[in-house]
Amino acid sequence: MTPREAYDRLAGWAKELAYLHAATGLLYWDMRTQMPRKATPYRGEVVAFLAGELHRRRTRPEVGEWLEIASTGDFARDPLSPEAVNLRWWKLGFERSQKYPETWVKERARLATEAEKVWEVARREDDFDLFAPYLEQLVEMAREEAGFLGYDEDPYDALLDLYEPGMTTRRLREIFAPLAEELPRIIQSLPALTADLRPPYPVEAQREFILQVYAHWGFDPEEFRLDTTVHPFFTRITPGDLRITTRFSEQDFRQGVFGAFHEAGHAQYDRGLPAEHWGTPRGASISLGIHESQSRFWENLVGRNPAFWEFFYPLFQKIFPQHNDVPLEVFLHTVNEMRPSLIRVEADEVTYNLHIFLRFELEHALINQQISVRDLPGAWNERFRALLGIEVPSNREGVLQDVHWSHGSFGYFPTYALGNIYGAAFFARLREELQPEELFRRGEFLPVYEWLQENIYAWGKTFMPEELVQRVTGKPVSAEPLLQYVREKIAFLETLRT
Amino acid sequence: MTPREAYDRLAGWAKELAYLHAATGLLYWDMRTQMPRKATPYRGEVVAFLAGELHRRRTRPEVGEWLEIASTGDFARDPLSPEAVNLRWWKLGFERSQKYPETWVKERARLATEAEKVWEVARREDDFDLFAPYLEQLVEMAREEAGFLGYDEDPYDALLDLYEPGMTTRRLREIFAPLAEELPRIIQSLPALTADLRPPYPVEAQREFILQVYAHWGFDPEEFRLDTTVHPFFTRITPGDLRITTRFSEQDFRQGVFGAFHEAGHAQYDRGLPAEHWGTPRGASISLGIHESQSRFWENLVGRNPAFWEFFYPLFQKIFPQHNDVPLEVFLHTVNEMRPSLIRVEADEVTYNLHIFLRFELEHALINQQISVRDLPGAWNERFRALLGIEVPSNREGVLQDVHWSHGSFGYFPTYALGNIYGAAFFARLREELQPEELFRRGEFLPVYEWLQENIYAWGKTFMPEELVQRVTGKPVSAEPLLQYVREKIAFLETLRT
Repeated sequence: MTPREAYDRLAGWAKELAYLHAATGLLYWDMRTQMPRKATPYRGEVVAFLAGELHRRRTRPEVGEWLEIASTGDFARDPLSPEAVNLRWWKLGFERSQKYPETWVKERARLATEAEKVWEVARREDDFDLFAPYLEQLVEMAREEAGFLGYDEDPYDALLDLYEPGMTTRRLREIFAPLAEELPRIIQSLPALTADLRPPYPVEAQREFILQVYAHWGFDPEEFRLDTTVHPFFTRITPGDLRITTRFSEQDFRQGVFGAFHEAGHAQYDRGLPAEHWGTPRGASISLGIHESQSRFWENLVGRNPAFWEFFYPLFQKIFPQHNDVPLEVFLHTVNEMRPSLIRVEADEVTYNLHIFLRFELEHALINQQISVRDLPGAWNERFRALLGIEVPSNREGVLQDVHWSHGSFGYFPTYALGNIYGAAFFARLREELQPEELFRRGEFLPVYEWLQENIYAWGKTFMPEELVQRVTGKPVSAEPLLQYVREKIAFLETLRT
Repeated sequence: MTPREAYDRLAGWAKELAYLHAATGLLYWDMRTQMPRKATPYRGEVVAFLAGELHRRRTRPEVGEWLEIASTGDFARDPLSPEAVNLRWWKLGFERSQKYPETWVKERARLATEAEKVWEVARREDDFDLFAPYLEQLVEMAREEAGFLGYDEDPYDALLDLYEPGMTTRRLREIFAPLAEELPRIIQSLPALTADLRPPYPVEAQREFILQVYAHWGFDPEEFRLDTTVHPFFTRITPGDLRITTRFSEQDFRQGVFGAFHEAGHAQYDRGLPAEHWGTPRGASISLGIHESQSRFWENLVGRNPAFWEFFYPLFQKIFPQHNDVPLEVFLHTVNEMRPSLIRVEADEVTYNLHIFLRFELEHALINQQISVRDLPGAWNERFRALLGIEVPSNREGVLQDVHWSHGSFGYFPTYALGNIYGAAFFARLREELQPEELFRRGEFLPVYEWLQENIYAWGKTFMPEELVQRVTGKPVSAEPLLQYVREKIAFLETLRT
């Protein structure tokens, strides 16, 4: 077998994984947006079967051999060539999948499925003790997982690396430090803005507004859908098939509209990936942090930007005439309302990061056995008070609010704050090259998409996250641009106070 | 390996095929109701991959061995036992699947996906030449398929048997003969009823009426969906997941409502199949003809029945108050309008069969190379005039109107007329046991569903189609009950003339 032949086999193998992913992705999207409830147990069987097929193929023993042969090829000498990128990531993924004992994988899948169901009940009934034994097992299995994967300093690093390749606890603390220090001070003096809502906001009218924004953002109606669901998400089934979801409230348009902006940001990234490399690492997104930087970019840096609303507010008023007598200045309060609150997914763009720091601290302590599951609710409430200055009235609105831990996902939360940090760094750099606010005022968003596409989306997994940020911004990753943005935003909002 | 062990392996194998079928079914449903158009080529790849997987598994060499061992088991001695039924059909399917080359299967799947999209454009733009080269390839592949499958007299028989097991061209002509003879005479003296339509019929209101009818027919809102599409169809993804589609016209409620009744008839059959046998022949429908007998049953024998409307017309008038001053007798004209028309799916229950005879003749001639694709539009228009007495003004309303050939499905159309014939035979028998019209007048439809479930649906593939009809009605298949029904219906409609 020549190196090229081995490479072609790998490419074929990767394509089959992509097809199975596409089918699985559609089964999940459908389950969360369309499926009749009575299908639930049968759909579970179908999805479990495809998950098994994916696992079986990922770990095919021939893959190791192909990787060895292919990596001797001249075509992989340039580390930026698609072949080199693909071989690097295929090797990493294959070696990683070999580290997990098969019985352990099955047991974790079983535990996570059960734990999520128990978590749902525990949250609904505000009963942490019900969930605690499952969480204990999940933490224990995450520690085992870190052991399988290996690490230098900290077992948490092994987990973090699954979501944000190359990231470590040490580096994360370094990046987060200035924010963790300044934000609690900043939020004590947030401008006291009052939201001026004029419900009802009929769902169809909200959809109409969102679709008009999407059109300006460059989305072709023949390449996406917008549907409603309980927990909003975005998924790309294949190139040309972007599935955005949101949930609407007729009382408060911000939930549906900014949810739709956020998920559309994820969609922008996947839309900009090179379709000719679909199904290979060269055509895939690099990390959860970089992905989140794009959802945050389009949701906040674009979608909450005063210049954005200078252009779009007249359309908004046309669709929602109850806003005709609300001046733009007052409306900007409404879409930029900032105040410490209990629920992460409803938090504003400033306080949001504190919700993440809390989770990062606590899950890091759990994995390092510095805190026990039994002590978790108390620790949560105490740290929450210290960071955000408010009392947590129930575990339901506290430690039980998020689904992630019930899946056994530890190391995932920090990528949300990294997304804010990366996004602000990209935006600061963009401002040095274009004048985005000038463009937004004229309703021109395509130059910004093109800039992001060229600098970020088009590269797939070519560069590691920090390397990518360095390349795009010319500087190492730092929270400084985010802090700068926050200070500026708050100063601007202060000028709107009447 | 004991016979029981071999049987269990077969059951596991069949379950995996069922999972792949479910995923494929969803990919197709989604493609026709939800998918953004730009995804088309990629979706084609995913579907082709799964078709290849299905084929690869269907033809696994161990299956032949398992079948041999399992068939020696005592448990399969009773030919009506689930095990015997399953072994019979697995054997047939396995032997059949061995006959197809894998590359051919993939190529046909790819061609059909592409051809359907081209057909959509060709129909929209009334451009037969655009579709012709695809149709030529599809006919050629169908001839190859007949060759793979084998046949005694006629290559068309091999294709027919795929949809209606046991049926042949010879037997079909025998069954159709009395209808083909009498119908052209009957339609020359159809009662001149005038439809009294009062548009507009808003789509949402039509949906509301349909959903109320469905509730009376026993459908649970948590087990089905109703969506819109270009060419209505029904598919069951898994048990508890019935996907009905229709298309609406605000000008004429009959298109959406009777389309939805028709597809719901298909859904009744699948809903009534034994879920515990899902994924095995014992839990699957026996033939397209029997399936169509159920769609026709619920659309026409129930849904166009004067007794049905005695119950539902007040609700219809409430939802469409423009009908308040239209008496039931006049409304019964509207829902039973009979006159030769151009489009099969909009044809009345009497002339419908002539649309089928036309297609049967032409596709039989295509497969036997008695006519070329280039000559098809001319032949269509000529035979149409002869059978139905009207001129076809465009290919869009003629030879391009149906999707079937674009899928490469030849031998499928006759099952529609068989459905009418079987359905009328079942209804005639039902009348000897229950008084369906009495029930309908009171809004009671469940006893009829239960009768059909017990006598037809619950049996899965236990009996061959003609055997099943014989068992249920006590007589061999014959067009006589349908002719009788048609005569009776026309006589009744004559009494409504004022």
